[in-house]
Amino acid sequence: MVIIMQPEATFEDIFEVVKSIEDAGLEAKIMEGAQQKIIGVIGDKTKLASVAIGAMNGVENIVSISKSYKLASREFHPQSTVIDIGGVKIGGDEPVIMAGPCAVESREQILETAEIVKKGGAKFLRGGAYKPRTSPYSFQGLEVEGLKYLAEAREKTGLKVVTEVTTVEGIAPVAEYADIMQIGARNMQNFGLLKEVGKCGKPVMLKRGLSATIDEWLNAAEYIINAGTPDVILCERGIRTFEVYTRNTLDLSAVAAIKHLSHLPIVVDPSHGTGKWRMIKPMAFAAIAAGADGLMMEVHPNPAKALSDGSQSLTAENYFELMDGVKKLSKLMREENLNPISE
Amino acid sequence: MVIIMQPEATFEDIFEVVKSIEDAGLEAKIMEGAQQKIIGVIGDKTKLASVAIGAMNGVENIVSISKSYKLASREFHPQSTVIDIGGVKIGGDEPVIMAGPCAVESREQILETAEIVKKGGAKFLRGGAYKPRTSPYSFQGLEVEGLKYLAEAREKTGLKVVTEVTTVEGIAPVAEYADIMQIGARNMQNFGLLKEVGKCGKPVMLKRGLSATIDEWLNAAEYIINAGTPDVILCERGIRTFEVYTRNTLDLSAVAAIKHLSHLPIVVDPSHGTGKWRMIKPMAFAAIAAGADGLMMEVHPNPAKALSDGSQSLTAENYFELMDGVKKLSKLMREENLNPISE
Amino acid sequence: MVIIMQPEATFEDIFEVVKSIEDAGLEAKIMEGAQQKIIGVIGDKTKLASVAIGAMNGVENIVSISKSYKLASREFHPQSTVIDIGGVKIGGDEPVIMAGPCAVESREQILETAEIVKKGGAKFLRGGAYKPRTSPYSFQGLEVEGLKYLAEAREKTGLKVVTEVTTVEGIAPVAEYADIMQIGARNMQNFGLLKEVGKCGKPVMLKRGLSATIDEWLNAAEYIINAGTPDVILCERGIRTFEVYTRNTLDLSAVAAIKHLSHLPIVVDPSHGTGKWRMIKPMAFAAIAAGADGLMMEVHPNPAKALSDGSQSLTAENYFELMDGVKKLSKLMREENLNPISE
Amino acid sequence: MVIIMQPEATFEDIFEVVKSIEDAGLEAKIMEGAQQKIIGVIGDKTKLASVAIGAMNGVENIVSISKSYKLASREFHPQSTVIDIGGVKIGGDEPVIMAGPCAVESREQILETAEIVKKGGAKFLRGGAYKPRTSPYSFQGLEVEGLKYLAEAREKTGLKVVTEVTTVEGIAPVAEYADIMQIGARNMQNFGLLKEVGKCGKPVMLKRGLSATIDEWLNAAEYIINAGTPDVILCERGIRTFEVYTRNTLDLSAVAAIKHLSHLPIVVDPSHGTGKWRMIKPMAFAAIAAGADGLMMEVHPNPAKALSDGSQSLTAENYFELMDGVKKLSKLMREENLNPISE
Repeated sequence: MVIIMQPEATFEDIFEVVKSIEDAGLEAKIMEGAQQKIIGVIGDKTKLASVAIGAMNGVENIVSISKSYKLASREFHPQSTVIDIGGVKIGGDEPVIMAGPCAVESREQILETAEIVKKGGAKFLRGGAYKPRTSPYSFQGLEVEGLKYLAEAREKTGLKVVTEVTTVEGIAPVAEYADIMQIGARNMQNFGLLKEVGKCGKPVMLKRGLSATIDEWLNAAEYIINAGTPDVILCERGIRTFEVYTRNTLDLSAVAAIKHLSHLPIVVDPSHGTGKWRMIKPMAFAAIAAGADGLMMEVHPNPAKALSDGSQSLTAENYFELMDGVKKLSKLMREENLNPISE
Repeated sequence: MVIIMQPEATFEDIFEVVKSIEDAGLEAKIMEGAQQKIIGVIGDKTKLASVAIGAMNGVENIVSISKSYKLASREFHPQSTVIDIGGVKIGGDEPVIMAGPCAVESREQILETAEIVKKGGAKFLRGGAYKPRTSPYSFQGLEVEGLKYLAEAREKTGLKVVTEVTTVEGIAPVAEYADIMQIGARNMQNFGLLKEVGKCGKPVMLKRGLSATIDEWLNAAEYIINAGTPDVILCERGIRTFEVYTRNTLDLSAVAAIKHLSHLPIVVDPSHGTGKWRMIKPMAFAAIAAGADGLMMEVHPNPAKALSDGSQSLTAENYFELMDGVKKLSKLMREENLNPISE
Repeated sequence: MVIIMQPEATFEDIFEVVKSIEDAGLEAKIMEGAQQKIIGVIGDKTKLASVAIGAMNGVENIVSISKSYKLASREFHPQSTVIDIGGVKIGGDEPVIMAGPCAVESREQILETAEIVKKGGAKFLRGGAYKPRTSPYSFQGLEVEGLKYLAEAREKTGLKVVTEVTTVEGIAPVAEYADIMQIGARNMQNFGLLKEVGKCGKPVMLKRGLSATIDEWLNAAEYIINAGTPDVILCERGIRTFEVYTRNTLDLSAVAAIKHLSHLPIVVDPSHGTGKWRMIKPMAFAAIAAGADGLMMEVHPNPAKALSDGSQSLTAENYFELMDGVKKLSKLMREENLNPISE
Repeated sequence: MVIIMQPEATFEDIFEVVKSIEDAGLEAKIMEGAQQKIIGVIGDKTKLASVAIGAMNGVENIVSISKSYKLASREFHPQSTVIDIGGVKIGGDEPVIMAGPCAVESREQILETAEIVKKGGAKFLRGGAYKPRTSPYSFQGLEVEGLKYLAEAREKTGLKVVTEVTTVEGIAPVAEYADIMQIGARNMQNFGLLKEVGKCGKPVMLKRGLSATIDEWLNAAEYIINAGTPDVILCERGIRTFEVYTRNTLDLSAVAAIKHLSHLPIVVDPSHGTGKWRMIKPMAFAAIAAGADGLMMEVHPNPAKALSDGSQSLTAENYFELMDGVKKLSKLMREENLNPISE
């Protein structure tokens, strides 16, 4: 932590800041610049939690240096995490594909979609039984009934299931049926939910919040790991910007950033990231080329009849074509040892 | 709802769209432009919930026209809502001030702050007993103990209490002690929480999410009203933008927008909105001049010792000075009938 | 400047960074933290212009501490600048109002508007003769003819003229007719234009770029002052965010930020800031209450017939009503010594 | 164009709007919804340029439907544009690579870099002789001297030259030495410059503005084409968002969007897009996989000594490694017919 003093800060102001730092059991180092003095803080800055340096006289600004997350950081855990879910490895050599409808709408729909998803080569079936929707009048999901259909589809196809949990009360039922517990973008900083989902013992997929910085996202992962679950998968799904042509702006540079800052695997969701089915294939290819550990995509047997997100869902045909390309791309990258991430 | 077809859409594409609309019991009107055809949809568009027009062949884009919220809209409820909480009116002629520390830290701290807050003329004491924090290692609040201190401060000063609820489990204890239930920015789209808080019978203050549009904010209010509580107060607290000098960008135009679109009262939080105590006074004055129904501010007897948000907290002295100005401004506006909102 | 080294940086990496700093004639101070070493740089950092520290081995990040602008900074020039333009003082005790149409459309239109503007109490007539428009097919302005109409309106009413210059070639004609040269938001970082307009000897009003940080804005002002013109007026006109209800998000906290960081006067443009005429009055009141040195607004005798920006233009009647309120507010603030900016 | 009337709009309000539309020679169609009436406008909406519908009584909002650009649109020109520059085809089957230093710093530097660039397989040498810099005290470029060094490097290596023009006065000298005229992000809406560069007869590379929507970007291209140059290359270089880890957020979905909306070729600049050399390779791979027509990257023989942007420049070794991967990826995509863009 570095404290930047105002040019007009007095000797006494500086003395008070230094004293607060030392009272907290830390060391302060003063650097005297041409215009301003700055004070470096050495030691574990969590000890400073009870001192609001920013409110002290003469303080202009505070710059954080060490990260506030530890368990999620690559510094703390240099080896990349590989999560093995019944033999399917996330974070390993091959990208893992998760596909399925936005929402579980009926038994028929989910079973039909599961066959398509399986045939295309995905390992996970996605589908929401609890849907967080902007309007209270939109379809809110089939809840436990939907979870049961997902489980039935798993039995029939051998696909694993990833599905969203939106409330603390929902953790137990979702954990009963799901292989991966998904935390949606709108709940990325629902800290009560993060703490509880981290106790359920299942792997968690944490979607990036609509306006979450990478630092906040890794801090949210820290909540989950700290609560007991080391198996956290991050999912980039687009951030909110001024651009209106796309539903969100898919931030593929987050893949490279996460690979540098963290040991956790990261998958990319080009359906929510773009909001347009035409853009899923180019963004899926791009995500694989950037080094993503997997993809999450919306597939629907009849997008035009989807109860939600039809505009960003692939038909079976488009999905197969996409999967064909993804397999070729990732095969080439493995065979040619094309590692997008520099050592 | 207006559907814009691609220039290359075929007659059949258009026919299919029109058929879907009519099958849903709505009326379709085709307008033939120079480049593109567009299709207007007449009737209650919620009937179209099960049709994903955007996924149909030949569809370029869909433009929503009517709002998805009703109970929160001024169209539905032209008269401005005034919420009477034990004689204090929010949304009435005088702005209502809510002040206090970011977090309840100790019995002494909250009692001391309450005296200051009372003396300055605020009607509400604020203070968090449950704190949503970016890092799991930051101070998370005193929980029920903190609520009891708030209640004790209320008894001693006559101030009302507004405090945050962060989980469904927390609703019962918070409702027992609070006069207003606060939903924080990070929970604005925690729909499970919105639905439950709307059943508890207490007024709710709903902070705007960091990247929530005004439309999404009013839809979140709709969840609460729809669940049973008509007494919703909106709170603008800054949105996330590219600017880094301020913690957030306080969007004061939201005051005028809400007054036009909704009947609900709106207060402004210049502490979180700016993140800097020096900027609270100018933004508080500005909020009052823009027509806000109140202010929510952080005041701490010793900001430099605050466990959170010290940098954006006012000292007693700065708070008194600010309140003096706010009273003069709002008195002038009433006396001179300076209505910032055009009829 | 503070250089943060990667945790795995070697002794040699650190040595190389320190050597580069010392070779540039500066002093380096190493602080050894628990996780990472950081290196403070003492002295004039412009000497480091030819060293890309960020590209050196082992460097994680660089944090700038001193500001890159000097002439525009309050540190360098503690006294607030007051610009006297033929007796009208910008940055003085009273807010200065600039009003008029978006574009000069005809002699009649500008003369009629000037009478309205004058009657309402503004001191400056605004109106564009050169219009930067998103589409090449939109009305681009009357050019020199428009400047002449503005000058004629000045003669008839005694109003001063502020008008935009968009190209280097336009500087001479605009300087011949205008009292203030306006640089529009889209040209805020058109550095060629900034350098030349700073040589023309006339005061310059610099609008904030759509996505310009406050730091970049003050650096742009620095270009103008450095070129020879100390008389720079800043104009906040809204920044680009994700919100779509308003045309831009008017950042009124910029008023307080500029007053803290700079000695230059700042005015606010609520017309472009909101894009809706209904929101001009509340945002004008708010700007005055926040301590702005003036307002720039669009007024049109018949907004529905305006060639540009009609939706955000005031009618004469709305303008008079707004001005009445602004006068009362600013009078109260002076009389009661309500200074929004804390010492 | 669709005009949405307020629910409380009167019959007269609607009549006036319809009359204005018809007076402009266009056709109006009224659709009567449950809550609101909407009015569709049929015909060439540029005829409405002189009517500010948005300012008329009873008008709530206006929604644009047809695009304001024509020459840049794929509707108008379905065939993708391929630009042949001395035998190098941009927009053809193979991605074109442009590489070199941020700025031309000296004869030796540019000649040495050109050899590296050539050896790696790029076809274009980039390097700025005129540098738009945030601060007036930063290195501003070697100007004509720099252009001459670029020309000398072209002679020695056979590489083509792409370099930035920042002012109208600079067009003639830059056009004398460059093969492609680059318009930088900060000048994307410097309309005076766009109009003039479009007359010089050379191909133009138009970088996306920091906060430019795709629609505004294509309108800026329209200015250039309309002025006489059909050969416009778009360059995505990152947009400004709230994320601070990266310098900008590289919007790769813009590649797919542009391919859908326009016939113009698009290249991607991962150096400015990320600001970190470590992220250039993954983003370059991703851009190629997404279907970009080329890449623009910063390469410097000694990034640590670069006068600008060293942190985002590749060393020769990193550049060669990246180019090796890019060649393999694009070869695979051609051979396997992996078209990221759906028909």
